[in-house]
Amino acid sequence: MDNTHLIFMQRAIELAREGMHNGHGGPFGCVVVKDNEIIAEGWNRVTSTNDPTAHAEVTAIRLACDKLGSFQLDGCVIYTSCEPCPMCLGAIYWARPEQVFYGCDRQDAANIAFDDQFIYDEIDAHIDDRQIPFTQINQAEAVAVFKEWHQKTDKTEY
Amino acid sequence: MDNTHLIFMQRAIELAREGMHNGHGGPFGCVVVKDNEIIAEGWNRVTSTNDPTAHAEVTAIRLACDKLGSFQLDGCVIYTSCEPCPMCLGAIYWARPEQVFYGCDRQDAANIAFDDQFIYDEIDAHIDDRQIPFTQINQAEAVAVFKEWHQKTDKTEY
Repeated sequence: MDNTHLIFMQRAIELAREGMHNGHGGPFGCVVVKDNEIIAEGWNRVTSTNDPTAHAEVTAIRLACDKLGSFQLDGCVIYTSCEPCPMCLGAIYWARPEQVFYGCDRQDAANIAFDDQFIYDEIDAHIDDRQIPFTQINQAEAVAVFKEWHQKTDKTEY
Repeated sequence: MDNTHLIFMQRAIELAREGMHNGHGGPFGCVVVKDNEIIAEGWNRVTSTNDPTAHAEVTAIRLACDKLGSFQLDGCVIYTSCEPCPMCLGAIYWARPEQVFYGCDRQDAANIAFDDQFIYDEIDAHIDDRQIPFTQINQAEAVAVFKEWHQKTDKTEY
């Protein structure tokens, strides 16, 4: 294992610890690295900022993209102190970094009552069988906007 | 179907159309409703703000939570012009609204080249078998922070 990977992960772990002790949120930290340099640091701030999406990875990805002036993390590596939850996993796939390193895994997280399994199960459940009810309405009106997008010529795809 | 549901969804669809025509991002809109009033509106701003997480639902959830001063959407209903992608689905489960209404479904989205199936497949794939490589390192150091969290007495759980 390249020693630099360990050092970047240690920084992610340090951010997890600092954020927790500073009362910002849960014990999670993340760094985004490009060309062997940290370009963004993130840590969980859910409870201190009243933002359920302020997980370490989402926070770091948003900052890294802002710094790069791009909605894509081309050539970047993410180091996160814990295996990403489904939301962060989705964010990672939308941001498209090259690689991800993680410290704790989902079992370690479940052991301290951060159990993502419920969300994994709900994502896999049929949309009509979820614990939060999902109901489709106004489909034709909504699809009309998609057709306008399809026909739009001056659009930025992502 | 209660007519108010249709009206709130029409607003979500209108936001999708406006955001698209204003060049903010893809054709997606969302509103969060509490006590029969819209408390937050969101639309896709990925490409205009260089934020891959700025989907309509994430944007609306962040704003709604900020307004409520809570990291939970207790008693709220989300109206989104399209079935949420896995990232937004995760965000919804972390925010815990009462109910979700959606307009287009994932097949409608795939028809205009917003195909979330790849992300669904990657979430289901074993972590060692993903298209973006995921590698576990420094697990023991990372778990040490989790143990500190477990022992911490003055924490806000979420």
